[in-house]
Amino acid sequence: MALDFDYLAQQKQNADKACERLANAQTPFVRNCWYVAARADEIGTEPFVRTLLGSSVLLFRKRDGTVVALQNRCCHRSFPLAEGRFDRDRDTITCGYHGLTFDCTGRCIGVPMQEQPPRGIGVRSYAVVEKAPLVWIWGGDPASADPAAVPHPEWLGSAEWDYYIGYLNPRGSYVHLHENLLDLSHLSFLHATTFGTPEYAVAPCETRVEGMDIEVWRHVECRLPAIYARPLGWEGMRAMRHSGSRFVTPGLHVNTGMLENLELPPDRQTPQPMIKVAQLLTPEAPLSTHYYYCVCRNFAVGDRAVTEFMFNAQMAAFGEDAYALERLSQMQAQEDPEFFYEISIPTDRAGLAMRQHLKRLADAERAHEPRRGARTGTAA
Amino acid sequence: MALDFDYLAQQKQNADKACERLANAQTPFVRNCWYVAARADEIGTEPFVRTLLGSSVLLFRKRDGTVVALQNRCCHRSFPLAEGRFDRDRDTITCGYHGLTFDCTGRCIGVPMQEQPPRGIGVRSYAVVEKAPLVWIWGGDPASADPAAVPHPEWLGSAEWDYYIGYLNPRGSYVHLHENLLDLSHLSFLHATTFGTPEYAVAPCETRVEGMDIEVWRHVECRLPAIYARPLGWEGMRAMRHSGSRFVTPGLHVNTGMLENLELPPDRQTPQPMIKVAQLLTPEAPLSTHYYYCVCRNFAVGDRAVTEFMFNAQMAAFGEDAYALERLSQMQAQEDPEFFYEISIPTDRAGLAMRQHLKRLADAERAHEPRRGARTGTAA
Amino acid sequence: MALDFDYLAQQKQNADKACERLANAQTPFVRNCWYVAARADEIGTEPFVRTLLGSSVLLFRKRDGTVVALQNRCCHRSFPLAEGRFDRDRDTITCGYHGLTFDCTGRCIGVPMQEQPPRGIGVRSYAVVEKAPLVWIWGGDPASADPAAVPHPEWLGSAEWDYYIGYLNPRGSYVHLHENLLDLSHLSFLHATTFGTPEYAVAPCETRVEGMDIEVWRHVECRLPAIYARPLGWEGMRAMRHSGSRFVTPGLHVNTGMLENLELPPDRQTPQPMIKVAQLLTPEAPLSTHYYYCVCRNFAVGDRAVTEFMFNAQMAAFGEDAYALERLSQMQAQEDPEFFYEISIPTDRAGLAMRQHLKRLADAERAHEPRRGARTGTAA
Repeated sequence: MALDFDYLAQQKQNADKACERLANAQTPFVRNCWYVAARADEIGTEPFVRTLLGSSVLLFRKRDGTVVALQNRCCHRSFPLAEGRFDRDRDTITCGYHGLTFDCTGRCIGVPMQEQPPRGIGVRSYAVVEKAPLVWIWGGDPASADPAAVPHPEWLGSAEWDYYIGYLNPRGSYVHLHENLLDLSHLSFLHATTFGTPEYAVAPCETRVEGMDIEVWRHVECRLPAIYARPLGWEGMRAMRHSGSRFVTPGLHVNTGMLENLELPPDRQTPQPMIKVAQLLTPEAPLSTHYYYCVCRNFAVGDRAVTEFMFNAQMAAFGEDAYALERLSQMQAQEDPEFFYEISIPTDRAGLAMRQHLKRLADAERAHEPRRGARTGTAA
Repeated sequence: MALDFDYLAQQKQNADKACERLANAQTPFVRNCWYVAARADEIGTEPFVRTLLGSSVLLFRKRDGTVVALQNRCCHRSFPLAEGRFDRDRDTITCGYHGLTFDCTGRCIGVPMQEQPPRGIGVRSYAVVEKAPLVWIWGGDPASADPAAVPHPEWLGSAEWDYYIGYLNPRGSYVHLHENLLDLSHLSFLHATTFGTPEYAVAPCETRVEGMDIEVWRHVECRLPAIYARPLGWEGMRAMRHSGSRFVTPGLHVNTGMLENLELPPDRQTPQPMIKVAQLLTPEAPLSTHYYYCVCRNFAVGDRAVTEFMFNAQMAAFGEDAYALERLSQMQAQEDPEFFYEISIPTDRAGLAMRQHLKRLADAERAHEPRRGARTGTAA
Repeated sequence: MALDFDYLAQQKQNADKACERLANAQTPFVRNCWYVAARADEIGTEPFVRTLLGSSVLLFRKRDGTVVALQNRCCHRSFPLAEGRFDRDRDTITCGYHGLTFDCTGRCIGVPMQEQPPRGIGVRSYAVVEKAPLVWIWGGDPASADPAAVPHPEWLGSAEWDYYIGYLNPRGSYVHLHENLLDLSHLSFLHATTFGTPEYAVAPCETRVEGMDIEVWRHVECRLPAIYARPLGWEGMRAMRHSGSRFVTPGLHVNTGMLENLELPPDRQTPQPMIKVAQLLTPEAPLSTHYYYCVCRNFAVGDRAVTEFMFNAQMAAFGEDAYALERLSQMQAQEDPEFFYEISIPTDRAGLAMRQHLKRLADAERAHEPRRGARTGTAA
């Protein structure tokens, strides 16, 4: 017997009520947070323009090599500063439309035909921290930015770990991508042919939600998928795979994989092979996300063939996540709102806690004292 | 002398007032109605996805051949069920994202990691009736669907009538397409070179509006257009053409053509040549319509050359209707609302009655007790 | 030190307050004004359709050669009249959908199946004045149109002046294009490589704002850019360039350039070389403008090579204006409204006066007595 509409209408009412406290694609961005703006090697002296948190941002390096991030829209008549003239000796930009000149703090320091520029006009400038191989940007008031709080993981870029960086730009909200990352239940389905294995669907799952510390773990006995088995030479062998997924900030999520061969003696597995992934999510627009992922490993360090193999295998898997994100975003956009609602299941617990946390942060920023806004960036 | 703007503003005010009671492209769809979802031969065991009444619907055949129609959006995180895994032995679908499993009534019967699925969650399922060559779907609550009320015409698919089916997907509202079908005055203009003849513009028109029974007839003495004259061998002869157009439900309109040769003796015209067209309109979105037309004839039955000739001739004519619908939809969309209004003329009487009827049905559904909503499907 | 957000929020509040009195892209069009509809040679007996002030307008010539402008949307069911049948003997149009017939005043003079057309229905017709080489249209009630008030400049099309006409169709508001035209400060920047010279940025600027008489002048001693220097044979010589820019109506702006060679004796410069540009702006939609420019000169009259050289040079320069307009429109459209505001500088004085004037005109029309609306067309 099909579910009748009275019943479904009641279900929708309950589901909508439960969702009121959760962030979704329409929730304002959390601004008081460190996000990755770009890879360090993407930014040079030439202007690099990128939409971050719904605003067009101009990124470039000063003469001394430090990275500057300015609002790209001239505060006068909205022409893009990126199309202006850059004075490399003075580190200034002159707008290509009416000639207002700005320094690298965003202050207007010259207006044609005026002895003195109007006091205190300018464009927003963003606090920026470069930590190889990434450039981080603070989405809120630079006065409230604490460079020491950039959640750059210590293993990313360190000598003991090798890494590669991928980039995707899916048409979907960073909220839903975070939810995807906190969910390990989809590995057996969405990633059935890439890095999921059937055992995942039934392996016990530990969820830890303590305030904004949100983490899930699974411990799966299985034959490893090729992406890990091949680089380790463990193909066909039984292994334990410990997979952890932790929400760190609105801009960072960390995955940890610890691998244990159940057929080889322990001394053949020192150090224990580990994978760490820094999942770097930066909202571009409500339905678009800059998605960098830095995949780090403590095995086969320096082996370019392994890097290449893993890069390609991982790209396929993360491409599946991006695909799912786009498909669900399309579905949400097209569905008659009267028939739209989301029902959650126990494995969503971590994702729901994260969405509730994002909603609280966004609400707090709206209630706001911008300078004293909650800081969400903490070391991973 | 041009009409001045004070006068036109007054005219707009009157026209807008008259239109308040009429359905238009913005009126909510009438849901409690049988609509054609697809041709029966379009649906097999592979998933067939189609947007119907603004929702993405998944259609497929169960193991026993019966057609199932489910909401395509998984009620958990909105991934399309059509991209899931179909278990043909059990007639179940497992979502390709997180693995929720649904039976063919839409009920969720399995959630990974849970002993018991949450009670009573699921996706909408639609009541479906297959009547060759069509599959009908009830747009509202399946609990209120009466399969006996499917308005499938008895001549469609019967042995005495031959038929072909065409499909168009115009970017315009089903309301305006219904209005087009109830209007015989446009044949001399829009279809001047296809199946209109100049005599149509001046032939008397009978309009019958009795409650929701809305019908127009024209009786035209003319030389038949090629589409009918050629298959009958009546080219160049005088004939009477009786054309009827009847609104049956929001999803069905029936045209009847009865042809009488004024130069041949009656005994050479037995049975009287007739054309019946089931015009099947299913809203896809406010400005998009699934438009199937089944053209049936009681002459040249089994003659494939006649079928092919008529199919091509008809396609051109119905393509003109689709073109007009799209052009007027574009014009309505672009026109400054301050200068937009519609004036009606006497030949619109049937169309206005139909639009008033659709508006009342839609309003009644909004006021609603979904289960006891007005049933609009009645036998043609 | 970057500007902090509290400070910028205050700045935004002040800037937004200052902008409340200014027209922008969202301000309703000023309708009671003469605008250029097209070049005279673009309109013939075949229908020419163009969106003007947000409405689709059908333009064509009657049998006697006079230009007619009618609302293109049939007042019955919105089919475009341009696709109807034109009776050249009677100067009537019959709609291609249901056959309503209109005369050239827009009145409906025939409805199929009706003895008498309904009294006084019809489509809007626009007052039109043809003044070679242009066709002007009154955007408001034709009853309030005064043909004597068409602001056609007397030098445009006269024997003493040669001219050429260019056309651009930038995606941006006519308000911002007007502002661009009243601003001479951008020449040194946006047009640095076309017709700006560095001296422009520092030359004194005279702004005259008297009611709706808004004009700016600059007097620059410089080497003329090639666009003027080459036709005059003044390359490399010092010259005075007097540049004036005057807002005439919402549809017309006039630029004047007077050139004086500082190295040649005065008797070699008789008459004084002058350039007059009629800048003809007609809103197509809020973010789209028909932009004709008629560049007239009193030197090298009849010299087609000079015309061609200047046409190409000018096209590049005006193309830069169109480009700037499009870029700022995109930027305004994409920027988070919370971070959007415009700050003005002293050289904006004329532009601000013009935007304030446009806002007042638009407001007055909304408050309206359409027939007695402010007339904005006055002779240039």
